[in-house]
Amino acid sequence: MNMMVNCQATQVDFLADYFHNIQNYPVCSQVEPGYLKKLLPDSAPNQPEPIEKILEDVKRDIFPGLTHWQSPNFFAYFPCISSSAGIVGEMLTVGLNVVGFSWIASPAATELENIVRLVKLCCALLLLTCCKRSNVGKIGKENIGKLVVYSSDQTHSSFQKSIKISGIRPENFRAIRLLTIQKDIKGGLVPLFLCATIGTTLITTVDPLHPLCEIAKEYGIWVVDYKNWQITLSWRFRALKLWIVLRCHGVVNLKKFIRNHIKMAKHFEGLISMDERFEIVVPRIFSMVCFRVSPLTLQKRFEFVDEVRVNEFNEKLLESINSSGIIHMTRTVVAGIYMIRFAIGAPLTD
Amino acid sequence: MNMMVNCQATQVDFLADYFHNIQNYPVCSQVEPGYLKKLLPDSAPNQPEPIEKILEDVKRDIFPGLTHWQSPNFFAYFPCISSSAGIVGEMLTVGLNVVGFSWIASPAATELENIVRLVKLCCALLLLTCCKRSNVGKIGKENIGKLVVYSSDQTHSSFQKSIKISGIRPENFRAIRLLTIQKDIKGGLVPLFLCATIGTTLITTVDPLHPLCEIAKEYGIWVVDYKNWQITLSWRFRALKLWIVLRCHGVVNLKKFIRNHIKMAKHFEGLISMDERFEIVVPRIFSMVCFRVSPLTLQKRFEFVDEVRVNEFNEKLLESINSSGIIHMTRTVVAGIYMIRFAIGAPLTD
Repeated sequence: MNMMVNCQATQVDFLADYFHNIQNYPVCSQVEPGYLKKLLPDSAPNQPEPIEKILEDVKRDIFPGLTHWQSPNFFAYFPCISSSAGIVGEMLTVGLNVVGFSWIASPAATELENIVRLVKLCCALLLLTCCKRSNVGKIGKENIGKLVVYSSDQTHSSFQKSIKISGIRPENFRAIRLLTIQKDIKGGLVPLFLCATIGTTLITTVDPLHPLCEIAKEYGIWVVDYKNWQITLSWRFRALKLWIVLRCHGVVNLKKFIRNHIKMAKHFEGLISMDERFEIVVPRIFSMVCFRVSPLTLQKRFEFVDEVRVNEFNEKLLESINSSGIIHMTRTVVAGIYMIRFAIGAPLTD
Repeated sequence: MNMMVNCQATQVDFLADYFHNIQNYPVCSQVEPGYLKKLLPDSAPNQPEPIEKILEDVKRDIFPGLTHWQSPNFFAYFPCISSSAGIVGEMLTVGLNVVGFSWIASPAATELENIVRLVKLCCALLLLTCCKRSNVGKIGKENIGKLVVYSSDQTHSSFQKSIKISGIRPENFRAIRLLTIQKDIKGGLVPLFLCATIGTTLITTVDPLHPLCEIAKEYGIWVVDYKNWQITLSWRFRALKLWIVLRCHGVVNLKKFIRNHIKMAKHFEGLISMDERFEIVVPRIFSMVCFRVSPLTLQKRFEFVDEVRVNEFNEKLLESINSSGIIHMTRTVVAGIYMIRFAIGAPLTD
């Protein structure tokens, strides 16, 4: 405990310094794979070391290997996943050692998880397993191979992984279409599960929820929407942290925070639209813009329009942007089109 | 960021105060299910609130709902899962926002995970899925129902859950015996996977590793030992934390720390052995003692020896101990015998 109290001041200074200088580090790590093994000793130290020395090593050896998710130049993946209140909440969760695997192991954590209504836990594999079990009871174990699962082809890849793991035949997964379901039923198969998606990973598209639910109702298929799966999984057992984030920032501020990201994305969309070299590839809905150098530009400049070469050009452009260390974006490929994926989000500080 | 710096001092004092007074709280939470819903508002606050007010609420509303895993009176489950260096490491991991889902997302975290050799990541479901896949390639999809998995009946329950999820027939899981494997092969089944266990959850027993491996080798079965599965799962993506714990405490101190727990368990075992009312039910190997009020004692006192009533008596004894809030232990039932499970472990402080 003494160590903790003594260390905290050093640590807080260390982190404060990190945030102050975050723009000076290359936002996307520039190290080569295997860099760290060369820097660290082969085994853990026999004798304890002072925290000051450890933090020096973190700065010298670990920092170059970090991709700085909290940097203002980070526009990759989904950036908005940290907050100063979150750090405070995390520290409290860890300090109190909240272990929430059963009610009695930490009643407050379990109950808080149910009370914090902003998110709803809902894990793909768990749901699939439950639905499978419930239907197998009706149709018999020998017919497990007849169960069919539907979703958009844009649903997160972890959903298809869950299908494989759950023992449902991978060939019994298909992109949803009304006729598909009718055909399956005629073929003696059993529609089990429909996964609708709100804000996909690749291009934040949204499935038409109402019509999908109507169809599913008609055929007695389970429907689940996918919007929060990833977020909630990482928040499991961290209810105390989330509760503190909510209280430190208030719902009004959280809404303002998210709307601000959307506003910035709209602004960026405008800038891209005005630049005739680029094109917006899919309509922007939330705070993500998917764009590319347009085939027309490349035709004018290099006299080629072949989609493969257009993709290659955009891929090279993104690689060159990321290797500068100045800004970090990721890519997305949908229907064979390579796009640069610019996702806006920022740490929730104050 | 300002908030974080300002909050930390308050938080550190708050946690220091918590550790100082930890013995004054009932070690096992005494609240009734649903207690928290009555205390908290229905929705998150619209406006942000100051950290001081939030911490007051934590103390008043959350503390009674905590089971205090770091209390010196906590002997339930496996207690030794926190350390002051861990809190420091956790804070650093969170502060730097280390997101390690792919190499480039945080190269240092991914590489550190491979370097920190004390633990080895090894998840039951992942392994089963890999082995299944590899064998299905050989025997064909249509024969997936023939795959058999073996382990001791004391292996952690999550292993049997993994089997169900992985699509291997639950009826094709069995407790290992040499003749069992031979019988399966004769019956046209395919031995796939053998899970050996070092230190089971219930009574920390150890499977005879060498003979098991010899048998498995003969039949070409995958063998995995289970010792670290649970721990490593929770350490995934927390390599930086583990690294800091190792460096702050050094391997010499970690060994001393674990040996000290075993020494204390041995001492407790001695005390129980000397008290003729109790008996040690299974031989102690590590830092856990499984004991009960002996059937002989109950026969002398109440004139009954029926195993069901012996179990009931011990169950009531444990309930009454836990409801005192003074000390917290859990139970274990093996081969129909109810035991009180006294597990020694302490936060790793200095």
